[in-house]
Amino acid sequence: MTRVDIKRDLDALNKQIAAANRALFKSAGLYVINLMGSPGSGKTTLLENILPRLQDHVRTAVIEGDLATENDALRIRKTGVTALQINTNGGCHLDARMIENQLSRLDLAALDLLIIENVGNLVCPASFDLGEDLRMVLLSVPEGADKPVKYPTAFLNAQAVAITKTDLLPYLNVDLDEMKRYMAEINPKLVVFETALKGGVYEAERLVAYILEQVRQKKGK
Amino acid sequence: MTRVDIKRDLDALNKQIAAANRALFKSAGLYVINLMGSPGSGKTTLLENILPRLQDHVRTAVIEGDLATENDALRIRKTGVTALQINTNGGCHLDARMIENQLSRLDLAALDLLIIENVGNLVCPASFDLGEDLRMVLLSVPEGADKPVKYPTAFLNAQAVAITKTDLLPYLNVDLDEMKRYMAEINPKLVVFETALKGGVYEAERLVAYILEQVRQKKGK
Repeated sequence: MTRVDIKRDLDALNKQIAAANRALFKSAGLYVINLMGSPGSGKTTLLENILPRLQDHVRTAVIEGDLATENDALRIRKTGVTALQINTNGGCHLDARMIENQLSRLDLAALDLLIIENVGNLVCPASFDLGEDLRMVLLSVPEGADKPVKYPTAFLNAQAVAITKTDLLPYLNVDLDEMKRYMAEINPKLVVFETALKGGVYEAERLVAYILEQVRQKKGK
Repeated sequence: MTRVDIKRDLDALNKQIAAANRALFKSAGLYVINLMGSPGSGKTTLLENILPRLQDHVRTAVIEGDLATENDALRIRKTGVTALQINTNGGCHLDARMIENQLSRLDLAALDLLIIENVGNLVCPASFDLGEDLRMVLLSVPEGADKPVKYPTAFLNAQAVAITKTDLLPYLNVDLDEMKRYMAEINPKLVVFETALKGGVYEAERLVAYILEQVRQKKGK
């Protein structure tokens, strides 16, 4: 058995479990988002901002993925939203089995939206389907405009992007239009949102409306 | 053969090639640095800043690791330093074999210092020995103070850290002392440098002096 065969078998197994997760989510009428981005791209901070607004309309839960610590789940719970913490103990991404193992801990029928915050890593999570409906990549302004072309898989396999920390633009040599051009070069269908912490999330209302619309469309099916 | 066996075999193979690289570097009197950090943590920018100062004292070459593009090698070559580009085509880290494959392209006996810039990823590169003498992790201020405890392996296996983009501190809710405390908690032996782009690299002279001292010590052995 060669290395390629083994990788292919593991990929096939992950796809199989992801398909089972997806079927379960569908039967529960649950919309699922897989959120990914580099360490410190602002994934937990974005959730802290949008969860209270989402909670007004849809019943939401969060699964947090990290190598170590329960820090992020603790932050999410302060918003009043249920948060489960997965520790990968060094593992560089979440896989479909890890999500499957958490689902018995949630009452899926009592939820409309599940947001999975993946391990901070712009590479590995992009290759693992978890059974989600939507993949959203976060790219923070300080990471630089060229990241979509340097880390293409994440952007190619996503439907939405949130550009975070736009309030830092005046202090950086980063061209936001160039960043967006690179994103469109990799994946012209990406829906792009701009957000910032200071002064509130600029396009938070648009992002929340977009997510609510996706949840509604799935419920309507 | 179980998954664990296969991982163990691949790890053993990497260690074996890394040991061969290390022996080759030693016989050539070449000091090797493995530079790692998240996407956009400032690895290439730091090199652009310190390479001209290092070049005044030691003969230096760079190997760049990226998923895609030759962007970083092109930036390094502008400093006058030889730079080879490895594209991992989606791979999340460099391994010892990739470095071995590049070594025939360099005249090792005509070099004193080789800097390997790993793939932008705070997780996977930390688990792969390349045969280096020194591991340096870059952590940029906007990534947040808690990253050493959330991504412990990278900091545990390193000897030096450069905290980058410290010029952004006034615009962020990040506590530099807290970041350093977390680093010391994971690995009390870490040598820590602070750097920034605007106004020059604050501790560039100290960092350059530190690297030159390591190169000299190896030559003296």
